[in-house]
Amino acid sequence: MTIRRVTSPTVPEPPPERWSNCLVSDGIAYVSGMTARAGNTVVGDDEYEQSKAIFGKIKGMVEAAGGAMADVVKITVYVTNIKNNVKVWQARREFFTGDFPASTLVEVSALAAPEILVEIEAIAHIGKGKR
Amino acid sequence: MTIRRVTSPTVPEPPPERWSNCLVSDGIAYVSGMTARAGNTVVGDDEYEQSKAIFGKIKGMVEAAGGAMADVVKITVYVTNIKNNVKVWQARREFFTGDFPASTLVEVSALAAPEILVEIEAIAHIGKGKR
Amino acid sequence: MTIRRVTSPTVPEPPPERWSNCLVSDGIAYVSGMTARAGNTVVGDDEYEQSKAIFGKIKGMVEAAGGAMADVVKITVYVTNIKNNVKVWQARREFFTGDFPASTLVEVSALAAPEILVEIEAIAHIGKGKR
Repeated sequence: MTIRRVTSPTVPEPPPERWSNCLVSDGIAYVSGMTARAGNTVVGDDEYEQSKAIFGKIKGMVEAAGGAMADVVKITVYVTNIKNNVKVWQARREFFTGDFPASTLVEVSALAAPEILVEIEAIAHIGKGKR
Repeated sequence: MTIRRVTSPTVPEPPPERWSNCLVSDGIAYVSGMTARAGNTVVGDDEYEQSKAIFGKIKGMVEAAGGAMADVVKITVYVTNIKNNVKVWQARREFFTGDFPASTLVEVSALAAPEILVEIEAIAHIGKGKR
Repeated sequence: MTIRRVTSPTVPEPPPERWSNCLVSDGIAYVSGMTARAGNTVVGDDEYEQSKAIFGKIKGMVEAAGGAMADVVKITVYVTNIKNNVKVWQARREFFTGDFPASTLVEVSALAAPEILVEIEAIAHIGKGKR
């Protein structure tokens, strides 16, 4: 089985020759750092709204890969203001149940555009989460 | 085999609905970004002491998963002052022998609290390190 | 099969007891955060030149592991000035074809030395990329 690129009608694709939103190999899905960007705008003006949009994209990719949010084993969260980490947690609780993924959350000095407050990447082991 | 959450009496658990310190799937253990925080205090006031506490937690998780530090294949180290990276290395030498893990070390603008100087996450392939 | 350390004559090794440039376990290669440092100097004074040197090192490690750039499933790019992200993309296009790796790119406050503008780590599933 070769590496498989996963796309979803619900998640905008990057232009060609940039990156893949999600590649799957050996049952492991690697989801790129996702932001709340949609076209030329960013969905949500705080970390809660942006994180909801981002987790929605991650869910879209993981489901397109044949899995579910329960399959996510690790997320890495990059924020531009760590004092608002509780807003990311608030959004996360709407997307996970049971054993939440292993997580890292750090504050970086900048993300792809000034209005982008959060970027989240994920690793999922497709089909391995408790149902 | 479904994803398994690993806990250890030696490593404080986060409150519910936050994250898992460690999930294991397909023999791969994903350890969350760990800090030297213990309850409301942070153990150690420099990068060496904090890193020792953190590697101790990572060791606790990996051993609770049935593995050993030799199984750690990758660590990512986030520091708030990269000039002190040698202090992280000093602590690391006390926890690894032989082929050290693949590593990334970057300076971020902030971690979860001002007194937290280091955060380290790890991936381990349980039982695959040289004994 | 135990964890295997991969080295290449084309990629400088770190001093002992620091890190491994690349470890492979279960067919997954973990490549450390690589910079354009070569001895006491840094190759290239912009993000394009440095990224070319870095992707060259990643290619060296992945090929020494028995794989190819098509096997790279995920890269994480740390830059010190995110406004120059297009320069990283420009270099990336010279090393990948087809489905590009899943990617995260964030701006950190500092890397190992002031003249280091980019650090990139990678995960590859050896032999699983399309040929």
